[in-house]
Amino acid sequence: MLNLPTPAFLVDREIVEQNCHRMLQKALASGVAFRPHVKTHKTVEIARMQHGGAVGPITVSTLAEAELFADADFRDITYAVPIAPEKLPRVIALAQRVERLNILVDSAAALYALESAGAVFDVFLKVDCGYHRAGLNPDDPDSVRLALAIARSPAVHFQGLLTHAGHSYHARDAAEVRRVAAEETAALTRFRALLGADLADTPRSVGSTPTASVVERFTDCDEVRPGNYVFYDAFQATIGSCHAEDVAVSVLATVIGSYPERQEAIVDAGALALSKDAGPDHIDPHFGFGVVCDLALRPLPARLVALSQEHGKIATREPPAVGTRVRIIPNHSCLTAAMYDRYHVIEEGRVVGEWRPARGW
Amino acid sequence: MLNLPTPAFLVDREIVEQNCHRMLQKALASGVAFRPHVKTHKTVEIARMQHGGAVGPITVSTLAEAELFADADFRDITYAVPIAPEKLPRVIALAQRVERLNILVDSAAALYALESAGAVFDVFLKVDCGYHRAGLNPDDPDSVRLALAIARSPAVHFQGLLTHAGHSYHARDAAEVRRVAAEETAALTRFRALLGADLADTPRSVGSTPTASVVERFTDCDEVRPGNYVFYDAFQATIGSCHAEDVAVSVLATVIGSYPERQEAIVDAGALALSKDAGPDHIDPHFGFGVVCDLALRPLPARLVALSQEHGKIATREPPAVGTRVRIIPNHSCLTAAMYDRYHVIEEGRVVGEWRPARGW
Repeated sequence: MLNLPTPAFLVDREIVEQNCHRMLQKALASGVAFRPHVKTHKTVEIARMQHGGAVGPITVSTLAEAELFADADFRDITYAVPIAPEKLPRVIALAQRVERLNILVDSAAALYALESAGAVFDVFLKVDCGYHRAGLNPDDPDSVRLALAIARSPAVHFQGLLTHAGHSYHARDAAEVRRVAAEETAALTRFRALLGADLADTPRSVGSTPTASVVERFTDCDEVRPGNYVFYDAFQATIGSCHAEDVAVSVLATVIGSYPERQEAIVDAGALALSKDAGPDHIDPHFGFGVVCDLALRPLPARLVALSQEHGKIATREPPAVGTRVRIIPNHSCLTAAMYDRYHVIEEGRVVGEWRPARGW
Repeated sequence: MLNLPTPAFLVDREIVEQNCHRMLQKALASGVAFRPHVKTHKTVEIARMQHGGAVGPITVSTLAEAELFADADFRDITYAVPIAPEKLPRVIALAQRVERLNILVDSAAALYALESAGAVFDVFLKVDCGYHRAGLNPDDPDSVRLALAIARSPAVHFQGLLTHAGHSYHARDAAEVRRVAAEETAALTRFRALLGADLADTPRSVGSTPTASVVERFTDCDEVRPGNYVFYDAFQATIGSCHAEDVAVSVLATVIGSYPERQEAIVDAGALALSKDAGPDHIDPHFGFGVVCDLALRPLPARLVALSQEHGKIATREPPAVGTRVRIIPNHSCLTAAMYDRYHVIEEGRVVGEWRPARGW
């Protein structure tokens, strides 16, 4: 590990395996379907770990991911971003190569596009459980009408209701996350009840790493789709989704400037090595752009106060010397991982392999 | 352009050429050496445009860039990030393939590493002109001692003093940028005067896009190194480095959700398509994550209020329909460009080519 060129993205294989195992066991024990998201890591290796070493149903955030995982024999894929009509030809082509490619719809315009495309699509209806990003308002009568139109459309194999409790990321502790988890499942159950007896068994798919992490077991839902939990990050540890020792990734960086007179140092990990995600700044406005640690991942008394393209500026009373190596726990592992063409896999501090993620769209 | 899959990074070739021409002419008219930074675009095509269609001296932010441009016959390269001792073997190998590979030093520790490496290096001394990221304090007597030690070291071909006025990015208008530009050159000139008669002609290299853009001509310096000016962005236009019509890049995106009841829409350009740079939030805390425009680049009455990995959320009184295409001017073109493996080159709204940037470190 010490010999790697910096910046480098390190993935601790044993922690990933443990995170994967724990979530899979919870899903199995709860009797729900498990369709983990792969957008955080975008690698075939970890997607298989999410299913205990096998292929299984997955969730993706781009069609590029869907195509990569289809090539790697994943046959049951949900593309969990509302479909853009222009992407339908690519969806149709990919659907012919797998058993099922679910897409998301939350508007009459999208339904109309499906009905004009000359194919039959596997479709989840996206419901808004309070995050207010995508999805239908479950308490609006128009939403029921659209759900019924989708369920009855000849262009649709209706697969169920899907929601994402992204507002769990606004929580300040695990207790708040638990309240969001209850809203997440309640929204789908309440909405499903409005759809009538014919649709009383419609599957309800939920998923966000905070809510999936804090609940003891999955109840009041049929499928779960967490993703970030494979790596976790500084954000998740701060809001209570995980413990600090559950975070599987770090960025190895080198001190390239040391300025004791202004109690600062700079490292060779900037915005392109970490992303500019501000982390849990709703809890600590001065959280910084990652957690600076020593090589054993013990946090240092230092704050990563600024990032430019290739520089990270650290405020610390005793700046480490030029050449010192540090490990930085990223604020948001999904965004940090996406900056790298390869991950260095480590076990007990030694590099044991390399994984290459999907990129682009 | 309308047929491109989204998100897509569009580069208007004519605007880039005009931006390149203007800066090159200013350098020529000022009689200073021109060593533009290539980190914003990382493409051989634009680096040649920066020199009027030829190869010439350049500045890079990573050794990966240095190696790519060396392969493309750029022979005079400054790696403008303080050198990490571990990177010296790679520097030595690359230096043998080019005429000159300048590196940056601002500490006795780095000088010691050079002297232990068994080679002679082309070295700029980094000076802090007020940005307080890297560089020696020009008003500290210890800085003079280190400068003289570097200049006299048998491991060094001393190339000059170098500074970067990154604090120009904290300015609120062009007048403030002009004040920073004066500090930038004054810091090097003042420091050089302390080095004695032997070093009275030491070259002074300056560079930041805001300062290089607002000055009428380059004075009180010997070399300039702007980079972002090839593209500019929403940030630069806001602080007065350029006009809105000088911005050469945009992200083409598609509306994938439209929610009139909450006056919001979502597009398929999120944090991975735009970066999470907060833009000129020191001027407008609600600036948003980019400027949402129609296809003719007219700003829409809309704010890009939130980004998740693959979703951008737009607040707007009349949300556009699903399927509508928009162009988003990025806050920080360097970081946005780095998210793409290829740029789509456009001329008068038509796609005429594709450029592929360097990646990684």
